[in-house]
Formats: sequence, structure tokens, C-alpha cells
Amino acid sequence: MSLWFTEKQTENFGITAKINKTLHTEQTEFQKLDMVETEEFGNMLLLDDMVMTTEKDEFVYHEMVAHVPLFTHPNPEHVLVVGGGDGGVIREILKHPSVKKATLVDIDGKVIEYSKKYLPTIAGQLEDPRVDVQVGDGFMHIAKSENAYDVIMVDSTEPVGPAVNLFTKGFYAGIYKALKEDGIFVAQTDNPWFKADLIANAQRDVAEIFPITRLYTANIPTYPSGLWTFTLGSKKYDPLEVSEERFHEIETKYYTKELHKAAFALPKFVADLLK
Amino acid sequence: MSLWFTEKQTENFGITAKINKTLHTEQTEFQKLDMVETEEFGNMLLLDDMVMTTEKDEFVYHEMVAHVPLFTHPNPEHVLVVGGGDGGVIREILKHPSVKKATLVDIDGKVIEYSKKYLPTIAGQLEDPRVDVQVGDGFMHIAKSENAYDVIMVDSTEPVGPAVNLFTKGFYAGIYKALKEDGIFVAQTDNPWFKADLIANAQRDVAEIFPITRLYTANIPTYPSGLWTFTLGSKKYDPLEVSEERFHEIETKYYTKELHKAAFALPKFVADLLK
Repeated sequence: MSLWFTEKQTENFGITAKINKTLHTEQTEFQKLDMVETEEFGNMLLLDDMVMTTEKDEFVYHEMVAHVPLFTHPNPEHVLVVGGGDGGVIREILKHPSVKKATLVDIDGKVIEYSKKYLPTIAGQLEDPRVDVQVGDGFMHIAKSENAYDVIMVDSTEPVGPAVNLFTKGFYAGIYKALKEDGIFVAQTDNPWFKADLIANAQRDVAEIFPITRLYTANIPTYPSGLWTFTLGSKKYDPLEVSEERFHEIETKYYTKELHKAAFALPKFVADLLK
Repeated sequence: MSLWFTEKQTENFGITAKINKTLHTEQTEFQKLDMVETEEFGNMLLLDDMVMTTEKDEFVYHEMVAHVPLFTHPNPEHVLVVGGGDGGVIREILKHPSVKKATLVDIDGKVIEYSKKYLPTIAGQLEDPRVDVQVGDGFMHIAKSENAYDVIMVDSTEPVGPAVNLFTKGFYAGIYKALKEDGIFVAQTDNPWFKADLIANAQRDVAEIFPITRLYTANIPTYPSGLWTFTLGSKKYDPLEVSEERFHEIETKYYTKELHKAAFALPKFVADLLK
């Protein structure tokens, strides 16, 4: 028997992947969690039947969430990740020698637990002494934080289920308060082909709070449309005006200093969403 | 009954789309041709069960094939399209006022016929008086052409079936001869996630013939991995050194003058394929 998993990325379109075996499946307190071994993309984490990350293409998302704000900030020391229980963003953050502490707040401890077990190349750095892993509500963590972080990264699921509060103007306002006076934040904001409104709304809401608001993209094969967006809000530093000497050598498979700037050159129909 | 079309983009991964109805299906002299109406992407042309173009996302491919070389060349007058029977590249070429004649050579007249019938927004310009539509073998057309074209665009299917000769060094050498002394050519060269060897081989072969060889990318949701590549060979003009005044206003949905250059900033794993 040949087993295929299909994710309906919209009502009428999806991706399908051959599954060698199911490694784990459970309904956690917050969402349905499946870990499967695929033939094409290695081990794959699904939450509520949506692909969250795969061993083969995870590097794109994790590098682009982390390195764009971290190379924009001149000296990021304290970094917060909201969500991101698979640990991939943490792994990338730790490549920056200026970082003294990286705090991860994921609402679902099961995501952390099974990522450590089945995605060791992604979650392996969660044990690093610089990392503080907290199982809790990221929205509440932000609400009680003030002037605390240099960079905040929101590595959430879609705005359904546990992540619904993470796409609100109130949350962005909380992030502004939780950041230091020259802080930067970035959030994944889905794709422009099927979720144009989400991007336009996030951009509008963030721009009402942060003086510098930008959108950038990356290609992720297992995410809807293959083109993912990230919304960045910054109090002081512009990601498009990073000086050459700011970049230092880190090992990457997707991010480069040229791509750092090129990722902000948007397809016209995407740029038009921001008007 | 709900009908879904599935394209296996690799042995173990694919896309699936809900089909409202099949508009036409036949085995032509060269390939299997299906025209279907999808709910998500509008009418869709399939050749040998692979998505060739859809009404919703076709603009990306057609704009990026055409405008990158046409804005690189200072005065493109005679342009050849090998393949491209759906007419989308021709539509984009005709947006450039310098173009006096655009020749299209597709081996399969049925592609042209059914594109005109079911993809009128794509194929509608094939009747323009500047366009010479020929049903014939693009490889042979190139072989007998000399010093004839300013720009040649290879809008082919995959290197299986009728297009197999269009991915050979002999073909690239023929293109060099068919171009004028300052000519430029571009070919679609698939995606770096599943077809890395194809890209590396094309780059190597083209670089042995053309003094300037470049790779650029675009996001196409219905193509494998969502990240498509184009290999460009040029005798004289570098697409990265186009002056600002060269760009003139054309109506696009994907291409912009900023994206023209940004599209050449490659993800590191793609850049590494070219070493």
C-alpha cells in the first residue's frame, strides 16, 4: 500500500507527499500534531493538518526569519521567539556571536518534545545554555514584557486555533513595548497568492505602530504557493540600509547578504498589496 | 462527484487541484494535451500530465522570460520564441515598442489552436501583425538561422519528449549562431530543488559558448517547488548592468525594474550549483 498525505492549502488546491510511515500522532491540548516520514522531504511536522516544517526545506524559513533582523540590528543580545517550538529559528539565532540569550515561548510543549525526538537537526540547539525554553502563552509573555528584547521573532502557525491572537494590532503594540528602544520584530505573514488580505492587514497594523515597516519574501516549496512573506517592524534600523561590514560569515544554505536586500524587491502584485 | 487532478512533480511529491470540467483532451502527434477548468487557477493547460500554464499565475513566467532579456538589450527588434505555443511570451514581447517582428516556432500546432480557444487572455496577441507563427521544429529552425535575431527565448517543456534536443550544447551553439553579434538568449531551466543537475548542466554548457551567463529565478505556484529558474546567455550586454534609463513603463503584474536585478540574487544552495 502506498500512503499519500494531502494538505488542502486552499479549498481547491493542495500538495501531496508520499509517506513512508507515521512516527507520532496525537491531539495535544492545543492542536492536532502529526510527525510523518516522507520520501521527498524527510521527516515532516504537521499541526492541524498543515505542514509546519520538513527536514529538507526547513532551512529557508528558519534562516530568513532569523538573519534578516539579526543582521539589521547592530548588536542583538537578547532575542525572543514566540512559537517556533521546533527549534529551527533558535538554531539560526545562535549563529550570531552577539546573542547572549534566546528565549523561546511556545504554547505547546508537545511540539518541542516531538521535534527534539524526530527533528534533531532542527531542534538540537534547544539544549544550548544560552537558550531559555518556556512552555506558555506568547501573547501573555509579550503583554508582561517591557523594554526587554533587541529582536522578537513570531514563528507562529496560521491565524486559526492557538495563534489567532498573534495576528492582532494589540499584539503588535505589545511587541513594540516589549522591545528595547532600537528593537526589531519580524513575523511570518503567509503567502500573497491565497492570503493577500492577511498580508495587507498585517502591514497596515504594523505600520501604525512601527516607524519602519517592510515586507520580504522567501521560497518555501512545502508552504502554499511556494512564496512566503515576512513582515518586519523596526523602531530605528532599516533592513535595506545595512552596511556591508555588518555582515559576518555564518554558515547558511539560503540566506546571503545579497539576498538580504533582494528579498525586499517584491513582485508588483505583492507590492501593490501594501499601498 | 469532486474531481481532482494530481501532478506528480517527483516520484514522491505533487500538487493537486480541483477540476470543474475537462475542456479538451487529445493525444497530439507529439504529446498528450489536456485543457481543464480548475477552481483555483482558472483554465489550465497540461502537456504529458504536467502543468504548462494557468490563467491565474501565467503572468509570472511569461513576464520573466520576456522582460529580463528585452530590457537588457538596448534595441530588440527581431525576437524568436522557440516553443511557447500558448502565446504568453509573445504577449509580453509586444509590450516593447522597439520590437518589429516576433517569430514563434512551436512544434505542436494543437497547443496553439487550443490555447487560442481556451486561453484567450494568454494567446490573444498571436494574431498581431508583428507576429509570425510557425508550426515546426525549433531545433531545425535554429540550425538554419544565422545572425538573425536580437533575442531568442526558449519556452519549452521539460527535457523529455519533443523538447529533449532543446537542452543540449549543440542547441545552445546553434542559438549563438542564430543571434546577431550582440544577441541575448534565455531558456527556462526548471527548479533547483528537484532538478539541480539540469540547472548545473545548462549553466556549464551555456557558459562554454556565451561570454556572459547568468541564472535568475521567479516564483510560480503551479510549477514544482514554486521556484523556477531561467538561464540567460548574452554576447555583449549584462542583465545586471542595465542602466536606469533603459527601463520604460510597461504594464506588468510581477516584473519590476527592482525585481529585474533582485531575481539574480540566488539562494546560496542555488548559487552553489553554478560553481
